[in-house]
Amino acid sequence: KMLSRVLCAVLFVGVLPSLAEVSQGHISVVLLGATGDLAKKYLWQGLFQLYMDQVSSGHSFTFHGAALTAQEPGQRLMFDVLKKLACPPDEPPNRCAVLKDQFLKLSQYHQLKTAENYTVLNREIETLLRQEGLKEAGRIFYFSVPPFAYTEIAHHINSSCRPPPGAWLRVVLEKPFGHDLASAQQLAAELTSFFREEEMYRVDHYLGKQAVAHILPFRDQNRQFLDPIWNRHHVERVEIVLKETVDAKGRTSFYEQYGVIRDVLQNHLTEALMFLTMELPGNVSRAEEVLQSKLQAFQSLRRLEKTSAVLGQYQAYASQVREELQKPQGYVSTTPTFAGVLIHSDSLRWEGVPFLLASGKALDERVGYVRVLFKNRAYCTQSETLRGAGHSQCKAKQIIFYIGHGALNTPAVLVSRNLFGPVMPKDSWREAMGWSDLHIFGQPLSDYYVYTPVKERDAYSVLISNIYHGRKDFFITTENLLASWKFWTPLLDSISHQPLRLYPGGVENQHLLDFEMVNGELAFTVAEPVELMNPDRQMPSDYKTIQAKFRESPLISAWSEDLISQLASDIEKTASRTVAHSGQFHLALSGGSSPVVLFQRLARHHYAFPWKHTHIWLVDERCVPLTDTESNFFSLHNHLLQSVRVPYFNIHPMPVHLNQRLCVEEDRGTELYAKEIVALVANASFDLVLLGVGTDGHTASLFPRSETGLEGAQTVVLTESPVKPHQRMSLSLPLINRAKQVFVLVLGKGKHDITTLLSRVGHQPRKWPVSGVSPSSGQLVWYVDYEALLG
Amino acid sequence: KMLSRVLCAVLFVGVLPSLAEVSQGHISVVLLGATGDLAKKYLWQGLFQLYMDQVSSGHSFTFHGAALTAQEPGQRLMFDVLKKLACPPDEPPNRCAVLKDQFLKLSQYHQLKTAENYTVLNREIETLLRQEGLKEAGRIFYFSVPPFAYTEIAHHINSSCRPPPGAWLRVVLEKPFGHDLASAQQLAAELTSFFREEEMYRVDHYLGKQAVAHILPFRDQNRQFLDPIWNRHHVERVEIVLKETVDAKGRTSFYEQYGVIRDVLQNHLTEALMFLTMELPGNVSRAEEVLQSKLQAFQSLRRLEKTSAVLGQYQAYASQVREELQKPQGYVSTTPTFAGVLIHSDSLRWEGVPFLLASGKALDERVGYVRVLFKNRAYCTQSETLRGAGHSQCKAKQIIFYIGHGALNTPAVLVSRNLFGPVMPKDSWREAMGWSDLHIFGQPLSDYYVYTPVKERDAYSVLISNIYHGRKDFFITTENLLASWKFWTPLLDSISHQPLRLYPGGVENQHLLDFEMVNGELAFTVAEPVELMNPDRQMPSDYKTIQAKFRESPLISAWSEDLISQLASDIEKTASRTVAHSGQFHLALSGGSSPVVLFQRLARHHYAFPWKHTHIWLVDERCVPLTDTESNFFSLHNHLLQSVRVPYFNIHPMPVHLNQRLCVEEDRGTELYAKEIVALVANASFDLVLLGVGTDGHTASLFPRSETGLEGAQTVVLTESPVKPHQRMSLSLPLINRAKQVFVLVLGKGKHDITTLLSRVGHQPRKWPVSGVSPSSGQLVWYVDYEALLG
Repeated sequence: KMLSRVLCAVLFVGVLPSLAEVSQGHISVVLLGATGDLAKKYLWQGLFQLYMDQVSSGHSFTFHGAALTAQEPGQRLMFDVLKKLACPPDEPPNRCAVLKDQFLKLSQYHQLKTAENYTVLNREIETLLRQEGLKEAGRIFYFSVPPFAYTEIAHHINSSCRPPPGAWLRVVLEKPFGHDLASAQQLAAELTSFFREEEMYRVDHYLGKQAVAHILPFRDQNRQFLDPIWNRHHVERVEIVLKETVDAKGRTSFYEQYGVIRDVLQNHLTEALMFLTMELPGNVSRAEEVLQSKLQAFQSLRRLEKTSAVLGQYQAYASQVREELQKPQGYVSTTPTFAGVLIHSDSLRWEGVPFLLASGKALDERVGYVRVLFKNRAYCTQSETLRGAGHSQCKAKQIIFYIGHGALNTPAVLVSRNLFGPVMPKDSWREAMGWSDLHIFGQPLSDYYVYTPVKERDAYSVLISNIYHGRKDFFITTENLLASWKFWTPLLDSISHQPLRLYPGGVENQHLLDFEMVNGELAFTVAEPVELMNPDRQMPSDYKTIQAKFRESPLISAWSEDLISQLASDIEKTASRTVAHSGQFHLALSGGSSPVVLFQRLARHHYAFPWKHTHIWLVDERCVPLTDTESNFFSLHNHLLQSVRVPYFNIHPMPVHLNQRLCVEEDRGTELYAKEIVALVANASFDLVLLGVGTDGHTASLFPRSETGLEGAQTVVLTESPVKPHQRMSLSLPLINRAKQVFVLVLGKGKHDITTLLSRVGHQPRKWPVSGVSPSSGQLVWYVDYEALLG
Repeated sequence: KMLSRVLCAVLFVGVLPSLAEVSQGHISVVLLGATGDLAKKYLWQGLFQLYMDQVSSGHSFTFHGAALTAQEPGQRLMFDVLKKLACPPDEPPNRCAVLKDQFLKLSQYHQLKTAENYTVLNREIETLLRQEGLKEAGRIFYFSVPPFAYTEIAHHINSSCRPPPGAWLRVVLEKPFGHDLASAQQLAAELTSFFREEEMYRVDHYLGKQAVAHILPFRDQNRQFLDPIWNRHHVERVEIVLKETVDAKGRTSFYEQYGVIRDVLQNHLTEALMFLTMELPGNVSRAEEVLQSKLQAFQSLRRLEKTSAVLGQYQAYASQVREELQKPQGYVSTTPTFAGVLIHSDSLRWEGVPFLLASGKALDERVGYVRVLFKNRAYCTQSETLRGAGHSQCKAKQIIFYIGHGALNTPAVLVSRNLFGPVMPKDSWREAMGWSDLHIFGQPLSDYYVYTPVKERDAYSVLISNIYHGRKDFFITTENLLASWKFWTPLLDSISHQPLRLYPGGVENQHLLDFEMVNGELAFTVAEPVELMNPDRQMPSDYKTIQAKFRESPLISAWSEDLISQLASDIEKTASRTVAHSGQFHLALSGGSSPVVLFQRLARHHYAFPWKHTHIWLVDERCVPLTDTESNFFSLHNHLLQSVRVPYFNIHPMPVHLNQRLCVEEDRGTELYAKEIVALVANASFDLVLLGVGTDGHTASLFPRSETGLEGAQTVVLTESPVKPHQRMSLSLPLINRAKQVFVLVLGKGKHDITTLLSRVGHQPRKWPVSGVSPSSGQLVWYVDYEALLG
């Protein structure tokens, strides 16, 4: 009944679609959480906009607000919201008034609480369609509810509210989508049991911001200019920034659980990052191609470490949390409200280019932007004072996707005039002229081509329109979401006890939150003023390495990250000293998981390492081809060798693969390696051997009760491991003990028992091979982290 | 007599050294070319300054001006110069007047033309010393004469004017020291036959410029600040610039032979470059240590190519040359009066940092500086408009050695205040305060610590003082000189027919001489305006590659450099296409000298090359260890592999070295390689094989009438070369002909005969193995340069 009345009314004003168009079918939109904040602020307005835009599309609509509130008060609440819907400035007021009236009539409130409620809703939709003789096109369920409610609602929709075959179902989900990788995986698994991937539309409203949404189209439409410069050879740095002046007051119950990284960086800023770094797909509007490029780009991101971030918290936050969450006076929050993060991609295109992400609350201004700064490659022979106002190549070159607010107070795309005149779609972006004497990013605005949207649109309007059009590329797929959490979770874990810099808020922050890149790490630029120090925070001195004795040899101990950086420095020092003295450095490295972090550190932080004069040997190897992911050499290559410049001739993998077979005695691989050692290493005495320890006390690939390698003249031996792959090749204990230095690295709680045991036992290599490590004239040093040492 | 009179006079004014001090001995200074321009302008003044400074040093002096002019007119000319000697502002006028009077009395003119003249001079010096009862400390001969006169003068000095044993000889030489490596070597050899290395003082007056002379002491005294940042991780670029407003008018007879690179870059700017790039020696004032560091730094410089430079000539130059040198109207000069050069060091410290050298005549201003610009590693969270005037880390960071003139009009050392407060020697440099609102290098002067010399000294005064003190580190040793010519000569050779950009001169040059770095090459930023084009210059289109047929296959031909760049692009294209299609690219490369340039080009200009998915195979190898410089693989590693990231597993050197012996049949190296190929390359069909051609028509290591490899089933063979090393390993012709693509590269005049022959003969592999190259289902392309093709 209701719908036919509406049809008449609309016919009357002459904007109604023809019946033929109406036969495109009917769409039911169900907004769950219809009286909540987000719905009030953006969603109803977005739905109204959709209705205005699509009223002549051939689809008919009904809008169903839903909440837990009972029918009558809920209905009243909802219509209070709907009455306030605004007419956009570019809409003729007459038309808008009529359409608003219709929109209200097409909208209904439903209490959705019990399974029964959902069945009823479904029946009502079916009845209405049957009565009006309309074909069903699809149903949109918009979840504007807290995530804990997701599963139950999803279950009900799946069992009672699916549209009939031939019509689509689209469920729209709002973040947070989990708290870390594990929780996101769990939530995703639950949702996947109810909905197919193509039915789910996860909203990241940043993808609806016009400047962000235009990054990929911009890259596509300006390929001719960008192809030669969109890479590490030309890009100096990229900044992705979202600054807010507001603080978390009134929202601490949410914020205290999430913090700035989960709230903004993991989703919004990461999506912008992906649009910049991904290889451009052949067709940028094909969701599947975009997704594949994006997933590849995620894989190239370098793992974040504790030192990749600087974190802050505005001073008033702690008391706001105590007040709002009724915490005791002594309660200390470790939730960051400001973060700067340095991200690197290891792709050939971006290697070495710093991507800086920054966001925070209680800052000096509200602004969002993505800024690509190009390297200055020009030399201007004419002196600056004599240079004209022309667009000199010596001026900075940048491309900025200005998301909004800030000095410009509008979304915009800015391209330095000395870069190129961009191609922009004329129907949606226009060149902005006649700006005043505004300066932006160090330059007068006149130095840029400035484009602003022809029609400024709210992110939610854009997104709701994209849901309607089925543009899945504007939404976060499960794979995309999990890739992002996989990237961020290690950082979130490692910073959970990280000290936060307190900042006063607003313009008073001054230089306090400025940060800089130092050797691939991030650090605040100015020292923390004493008056702002958090009295409860852990001081850096807590993390200092301690030095003592272990098994009568020097022991160095610290938290694992600090231990690794100490070990890497010590190896570099030994290497430099040895090369200065004898021209070359023979380093034998162990396999296993512990050294991987060391390899990465050596690859990234030790540019002065004399790699050119270093020979790399293997302490042990698994009998698999070198290109097998199980191979120790493969891991060494992956994490270290491919990033540094060791000459080919100085790399000595163990010859486990000869004559197309693995570790066969008569192929004499052990002899071959022994000969190579004798030929190149003076006295077969390595300059440095790096060992690990297994929980059973094994070291190298010398296992308890091994028949070879623990003693005797053979320097390289085949051994058997109790775990797969069983066959191994290893340096022998006597050869290891000829080394000038031996460092033993022990990491992690799992090694606590063996560490304790080793601290008590004597020289018993048959029981615990590592206890036989005792360089005859060299030095032995133990590097044991706190977890292994103290449990 | 004269001397004792002087001694009395000096005693009278009370500044005379005590007699004990005088007993340090006597120094005779002989200035050859005493009435020439340089002597008039700088050298006599410098000698006078030396006398004023050292009159109380304990040494006594006589000054002997010499020239070809006869005694009487020469004497008159010389004393006209001496009378005009100026008293420096910081010298008490009284003292100066007395000392000037003495200086004149200690000075004598000599005609030095014949051998007899030199003998007479020597006798006069000996007589004087005997008469005065003075011990001889040493003799300084200052060559202020054209280089063609050097040898004869040197011969005379060596045979007639050497001081007696116990006293030193110092000969001071002025540039030019040759015209290229060969002429410099010849001149050096001649001089070396007369003088020992420690007797020669080659002047580069830039080393006497106070700001240049302070570079090394600055690096030394500020080690604590510079150690962490004086490297590629922190330095963005370095500019070494000497701009002149004057042109070459009146000096074209010299200039036309030399040009700006030989006049300024090869010597002055290169010395400054070395002070910046060399590893800091333990003791920066020990000449030998400085020299060794400098020579090492020279070795790390990357070879310059034609594309490393941009060249210009001011418009009036050609007519000045025609007029002054009486050249015909149509005469075209190819001498550059402006050059910008991009230099790279491959040292671990500087790899990738651009060093820009620029100099020219008829520019907009006179100025010299060395500018080290650091990377901006900071992100300033506070927005720029709200940022205070404090020394924000987001401002540019630079260190400038300001040589003189320009806006500052004084030598100076400038350090950005956000970098560090430099340590400066208080006795010679003082902090300059109260500068006006001058802007320099994009920043107000107040952003810098500015130091100026306590006493501004002319370069020649500094150098003459250093000669007196025997500070050889301020002079250019033979090794140093030859290292510099070795570095510059390839560029000078390659640009001799390079087009020059004409520029109007002065401020009218505008942006015409601005240049920029593009993919490791240098290019002018703005296109050449048509009205300025040199009508006689060779147009770039002359250099375009031509395409035709050779032996019924496609032929690509061009000048060698363009041909190589075309070939490198074609290889990259093939590689990218193949990897996109099949995931990997199997490339077989030949040894020899021609491919070296190709390897270098691939290493430096093709960052998008899919190295990670490329397998590198050898077409042939010499039977020497892989680490032997004769090894093809060694050369390939040196010029290509060590600069790119081919995974270790994808590198396939030929197994010529097995069981500690070379290419022994029963070690079955050929079988091993054949098996490796079969295991990894689908159908043993390489994606691309690169071949060369020998003058005898050999290709790979398949020589005429070879018993193996020209036919038959064996895919990898041992062969015999007519030249050493005789033993080779090679892919066979049948295997090569299985390839999908074969490129044959032929370079140089030496290949013209065989190229001509090959264009006529058919398939005769036994006579000319390369004629048997004919891929059965692949494509063959010939890359032959103009010299090989056209002779």
